[in-house]
Amino acid sequence: MFDFTLDATDGAARAGTLVLPHGTVRTPAFMPVGTHGAVRGLHPDEVRRAGAQIVLGNTYHLHLRPGEDVVRQLGGIQRFMHWSGPVLTDSGGFQVFSLEGLRKITEDAVTFTSHVDGSLRALSPEKATEIQWALGSDIAMQFDHVVPGQATRELAEEGMERSLRWLERCRVRHEALQDGGPACQALWPIVQGGTHEDLRRRSLEGILTRGDWSGIAVGGLSVGEPKPVMHRILEHLAPILPPDRPRYLMGVGFPDDLLEGIARGVDLFDCVAATRNGRHGSAWTATGKVNVRGATLKLSGAPLDAECDCETCRTFSRGYLRHLFVVEEILGLRLVSIHNIRFLVRLGEEARRRILEGTFNDWSRAWLARYHGGEAA
Amino acid sequence: MFDFTLDATDGAARAGTLVLPHGTVRTPAFMPVGTHGAVRGLHPDEVRRAGAQIVLGNTYHLHLRPGEDVVRQLGGIQRFMHWSGPVLTDSGGFQVFSLEGLRKITEDAVTFTSHVDGSLRALSPEKATEIQWALGSDIAMQFDHVVPGQATRELAEEGMERSLRWLERCRVRHEALQDGGPACQALWPIVQGGTHEDLRRRSLEGILTRGDWSGIAVGGLSVGEPKPVMHRILEHLAPILPPDRPRYLMGVGFPDDLLEGIARGVDLFDCVAATRNGRHGSAWTATGKVNVRGATLKLSGAPLDAECDCETCRTFSRGYLRHLFVVEEILGLRLVSIHNIRFLVRLGEEARRRILEGTFNDWSRAWLARYHGGEAA
Repeated sequence: MFDFTLDATDGAARAGTLVLPHGTVRTPAFMPVGTHGAVRGLHPDEVRRAGAQIVLGNTYHLHLRPGEDVVRQLGGIQRFMHWSGPVLTDSGGFQVFSLEGLRKITEDAVTFTSHVDGSLRALSPEKATEIQWALGSDIAMQFDHVVPGQATRELAEEGMERSLRWLERCRVRHEALQDGGPACQALWPIVQGGTHEDLRRRSLEGILTRGDWSGIAVGGLSVGEPKPVMHRILEHLAPILPPDRPRYLMGVGFPDDLLEGIARGVDLFDCVAATRNGRHGSAWTATGKVNVRGATLKLSGAPLDAECDCETCRTFSRGYLRHLFVVEEILGLRLVSIHNIRFLVRLGEEARRRILEGTFNDWSRAWLARYHGGEAA
Repeated sequence: MFDFTLDATDGAARAGTLVLPHGTVRTPAFMPVGTHGAVRGLHPDEVRRAGAQIVLGNTYHLHLRPGEDVVRQLGGIQRFMHWSGPVLTDSGGFQVFSLEGLRKITEDAVTFTSHVDGSLRALSPEKATEIQWALGSDIAMQFDHVVPGQATRELAEEGMERSLRWLERCRVRHEALQDGGPACQALWPIVQGGTHEDLRRRSLEGILTRGDWSGIAVGGLSVGEPKPVMHRILEHLAPILPPDRPRYLMGVGFPDDLLEGIARGVDLFDCVAATRNGRHGSAWTATGKVNVRGATLKLSGAPLDAECDCETCRTFSRGYLRHLFVVEEILGLRLVSIHNIRFLVRLGEEARRRILEGTFNDWSRAWLARYHGGEAA
């Protein structure tokens, strides 16, 4: 359980194998987001056939609806949503800190107003740990204090220090819940510290003195800071993160972000962009984005992406997909979401193959050049 | 092509086999409606796995968007929507006559305002036939003059007589399009005449003198008249319709309507209720309707319908389905639509089995009593 093997490295890029209670994840890997216990618009069988190895569930959303007790009574998150593979749950930290004006932070907890019914709720390190335990995910995340990408050094330091103190509280609660039993859920810490390298280093050092974690996440990136800043922080962390532990870059990303992250040693990614873009009719291809509503697609019998092996591209024409969006038929959202998820999953698979071959950097550079300069844009 | 074999009868109920260019349909059978070239919310593979043998396409909707030329250029309706089985298209008559206040009827054509962009359009017998020819359905319907269920005798007679004249024009245009080539599309007439038995009889007689049709539809029912009136008209038509031709009751129905129709000799049905109810979280079971949003489902690990073999009932709990509707996750609409379609398809399959056994009437009576008095209501 919770075993990670580094299969190969190529520069800072890594190919690994992560063994979890509900299955094995070959990295680098993209994790689709199942906010409410369903990857938006998709059947779990479609997510599986798109090649996803692990999905994410949102503690904040599942706590509000249907409530972790309902999920637990219906057999846990996997059985509830008919996903037999591994599940990672976030802690709700990102969501409650995003509720600007609707939440109050104290050292004890974050009090917030539910976006569903306006009721007053609280999440604390203990509560977030208990919820994730009830959900039954393979990997639970620590409750952390997330600050915006433009936060002052003072605020970034405050969030980082508080996240360390909260990690300790999460760990204590998690161990109590585990109660000496077999390890069925891992708790992963989150490196914070905003855009400041020294704060990031102190965060990581603090994490490593507080336990022997089976994986480590990097949070508080892709939250408004410029892309080069994110890359700089990842480059700073890559050599000091324990090489024998998987690294999860939270909330990232788009296709280019995946390759940039992999090049800087990241193993796991999650992002809602695949399904959100899918719902808006925006599809990724190797040569850039395609607007599925575009008039030029009207009479096209070609697949959305001729290089793609997803169910959508193997089955339907661009002309048909465009028609579905024009008439607002929800099958369209689903078909483009399937494509976008497969696109990111396949990018992870291809990156892994290149890392194992030792050709990642050349391939990645060529891929990015084609994507950014692509004819499809 | 267009061969119909009567496999068995049981009272007025019939079991038949209809051979069409794109496949064989065992009757009685429910045909899901694919308004815009997609059964609302569903993937064609889901429709197929639900056991549907034939789907319906709407000429009015497909003419407006994407236009029949687009469908033709993309390979015809089957290839366009990735449905390899038979397709029946309606003529648009029902839709344009429903556009009360937005349409003008003359002997030549119905002029109407498009609900999409307000443009002025016209459908005539010739135009409706040409559109369906371009779409490439297995069965095209005549363009008819539909009157409401509460129409006066005078209006019902006018609509019936006009429908006969229009049938003749459809036939001439259809033969010209066929141009002596192999029969790849059938044209079916529609019996009109409102709630008046003598008008219905005259309509049928007029139809039979105008050609040798491979199937006959009954239109203008389930359009506002009381249920017993619909049953009376069907009972009147059953003995005078040619027994060796399939009979299609247009726009019907709900589960009980299917059994009542089959008992009166109907072979084919179509209705949007399965998917419309599915989208609203209303599911059919053998003991009546279930409101999927109901609070009593919250903690239920049971399937939606314990007697159902559909993908939804085999996979997901009532508690999960309820949760999907509460959080407005579109997967929910789809899962209940799959169940409702399978429910009607299965009802047709079971009715056929009972007719072949000669036990239809007892079974049907017991089924209806349980459905109407059921514990689930």
